[in-house]
Amino acid sequence: MPVNYTTPSVTQLLPVDGLRLGITEAGIRKAQRRDLTLIELAPGSQVAGVFTQNRFCAAPVQVCKQHLAGAETAIRALVINTGNANAGTGAAGLAAAQASCQAVAALLGCEATQVLPFSTGVIMEALPVDRLIAGLPRCQAALDGSAQAWHDAAHAIMTTDTVAKAASRQIDIAGSTIHITGISKGAGMIKPNMATMLGFLATDAAIAQPLLEQLVKEVADASFNCITVDGDTSTNDSFVLIATGAAGNAVISSPDQAAYTTLRDALKAVATELAQAIVRDGEGATKFIEIQVDHGRDVAECKAVGYAIAHSPLVKTAFFASDPNLGRLQAAIGNAAQNHAALSDLDVSQVRLWLGQTLVAEHGGPAASYQEADGAREMAAAEIKIRVDLARGQASATTWTCDLSYDYVKINADYRS
Amino acid sequence: MPVNYTTPSVTQLLPVDGLRLGITEAGIRKAQRRDLTLIELAPGSQVAGVFTQNRFCAAPVQVCKQHLAGAETAIRALVINTGNANAGTGAAGLAAAQASCQAVAALLGCEATQVLPFSTGVIMEALPVDRLIAGLPRCQAALDGSAQAWHDAAHAIMTTDTVAKAASRQIDIAGSTIHITGISKGAGMIKPNMATMLGFLATDAAIAQPLLEQLVKEVADASFNCITVDGDTSTNDSFVLIATGAAGNAVISSPDQAAYTTLRDALKAVATELAQAIVRDGEGATKFIEIQVDHGRDVAECKAVGYAIAHSPLVKTAFFASDPNLGRLQAAIGNAAQNHAALSDLDVSQVRLWLGQTLVAEHGGPAASYQEADGAREMAAAEIKIRVDLARGQASATTWTCDLSYDYVKINADYRS
Repeated sequence: MPVNYTTPSVTQLLPVDGLRLGITEAGIRKAQRRDLTLIELAPGSQVAGVFTQNRFCAAPVQVCKQHLAGAETAIRALVINTGNANAGTGAAGLAAAQASCQAVAALLGCEATQVLPFSTGVIMEALPVDRLIAGLPRCQAALDGSAQAWHDAAHAIMTTDTVAKAASRQIDIAGSTIHITGISKGAGMIKPNMATMLGFLATDAAIAQPLLEQLVKEVADASFNCITVDGDTSTNDSFVLIATGAAGNAVISSPDQAAYTTLRDALKAVATELAQAIVRDGEGATKFIEIQVDHGRDVAECKAVGYAIAHSPLVKTAFFASDPNLGRLQAAIGNAAQNHAALSDLDVSQVRLWLGQTLVAEHGGPAASYQEADGAREMAAAEIKIRVDLARGQASATTWTCDLSYDYVKINADYRS
Repeated sequence: MPVNYTTPSVTQLLPVDGLRLGITEAGIRKAQRRDLTLIELAPGSQVAGVFTQNRFCAAPVQVCKQHLAGAETAIRALVINTGNANAGTGAAGLAAAQASCQAVAALLGCEATQVLPFSTGVIMEALPVDRLIAGLPRCQAALDGSAQAWHDAAHAIMTTDTVAKAASRQIDIAGSTIHITGISKGAGMIKPNMATMLGFLATDAAIAQPLLEQLVKEVADASFNCITVDGDTSTNDSFVLIATGAAGNAVISSPDQAAYTTLRDALKAVATELAQAIVRDGEGATKFIEIQVDHGRDVAECKAVGYAIAHSPLVKTAFFASDPNLGRLQAAIGNAAQNHAALSDLDVSQVRLWLGQTLVAEHGGPAASYQEADGAREMAAAEIKIRVDLARGQASATTWTCDLSYDYVKINADYRS
């Protein structure tokens, strides 16, 4: 059960002009499971993406990077399978990803380099590419730009997710109505470093390609790059931003335009909703935790402190138990220097720590005003906010994570069986 | 239940001449629990220690560092309590640690600066120093150099440990019989960075103080600094090496002497046994896992890969499930660069991975000869050896860890209650 999240209904999602989706059951891993999604983009659409930093990056990620680097080749389609990640599959995996692009290209009448492939599921098993290719004509026949198609696609990209994740916004830019809709998936192997395992965000706004590439990074950094479930960055993380241009607004060409800010903020809102939904649906999650780190020297050290807290199994199990075991939080803060050397001169006597509105620690010890009953009340909530003041600069960063429960172990001990 | 480890019997432990131990029930946290240990050293004993790198280091660690830095002051006693870590306790905690040293000094007729304090247990709660001090005369009355006293002390320093940890060796140096006995504790918040939460190793060998200080680092690096349970470096990690000199051997004064090598190797053997015992008794552990990383450019990058594997919750739960989910191992290796930038040019197509004697992955994918049945057989064992060949240098490093089970969550969700 995700923490305070349910999939939006079809009526809450918005079609994006210039984009159609087709879903089918290809039998990639299990029968009678929608597991293959084709997204077709109208001519003139622009695409930018960010991808995992894992050195074992998956075959489809390698192909995506190649195809996006060919700047002259407009992307016309995305093909997404669940059930198999096509990662850790060597040369055969690369050939399979390329074959899936060729099959899409043949159906749609474009070049293979105009297709981006995405895979999610079990790692280090061969992708059954024949079944994938056999399913593509059914995807093509089903192509549809409706909110229902988006809703179906959100379901068709799930793996250990317990709910589908989708979000929409509508904004107005100089009289043009702009639609934004995104879908994402992920529940484990979640500590995106650039982007999370499969986030797709589309708008019908028109925007210059260089700005779209700036935008995808800004949006990822404010959303998917702020979440972690287990600290394990996936081999397949991919976040893609699509702008079809079909809304007919004057092309946004400068970050100084008000239209850029309006579009960026709306995209960030949708991406943040999708990213938080991944944490709320984190494997075994019973709590949603926001960690705000303030007054660091730079964002990197604030994030290092946030991740040190978010990745500590002792902190995460204390959240699961609703136990205000504040020493574990302090110990985690004190450990952040191990992965971020600039923190090795952190003066812990200056650090202050809040649970919700309650100041719990300062001067290297418990706050004088702190009562354990207050800590227990804050920890009992389904949503918990931690604030850390490092007292040595002006930077801040926020991290979202979840707790570590019995079900986390159960899900991951059973995943392949 | 620890993995293939039981506490040695009293007859397997050796007294160390020049050292006596006294244990009592001081009621630090729970009644009827041996929780206070006093160790008295004969005049002329030498002591060296290494301590946690956690920025929130505990009050007793701060006091130990001060007292050891006073090079002219010979250490005469150690006082160790369990039940309370006296960490995250600010100025009051520091005063409590100093008060415990003063009380020991008054009893033994030495200076407070000749006493080293150690605490383990819950963090960020006030140390009940009055109860500690009230127990000291009973410890003094019980002082005893026997193997039984060592055995008792190994029990009296436990927290969430399920077994006491102790080990002995006897060696001969130029006709003098040398005894080495050590005790350790720890089951969670274990990822020592310099030393683990409470390891005490004593010998009656005579050795020059500068060499002892070199030796404590060498021994820690080869033993306690190679283990991790949960990646959470404690606030209280302390590893202390005591040389009483009572064996009467000619003082070892140079690392080039054969006697130095003989002593070092025996100390490493005892320390490694104690360090591995901590992993075997890791919270909820059902598997003992050795990760050997070869052919890295330097030890640091080999250790970074080892810890990336050892800290991945997905890898640890796969071990618990005996699931040869090799993709999780690859993903963890691919992530090591996040905490060790020098690995960002790791060529994963050159990396080879073994489970036990079985080559499971190479060329970025499964090995051609790999059969899942072989992987399943290796994973089913209680002791599992992983070997990673990075194929880019001559350095190696070994890391020892355990799996992540339901019981890990249970222990840590229940710890304070």
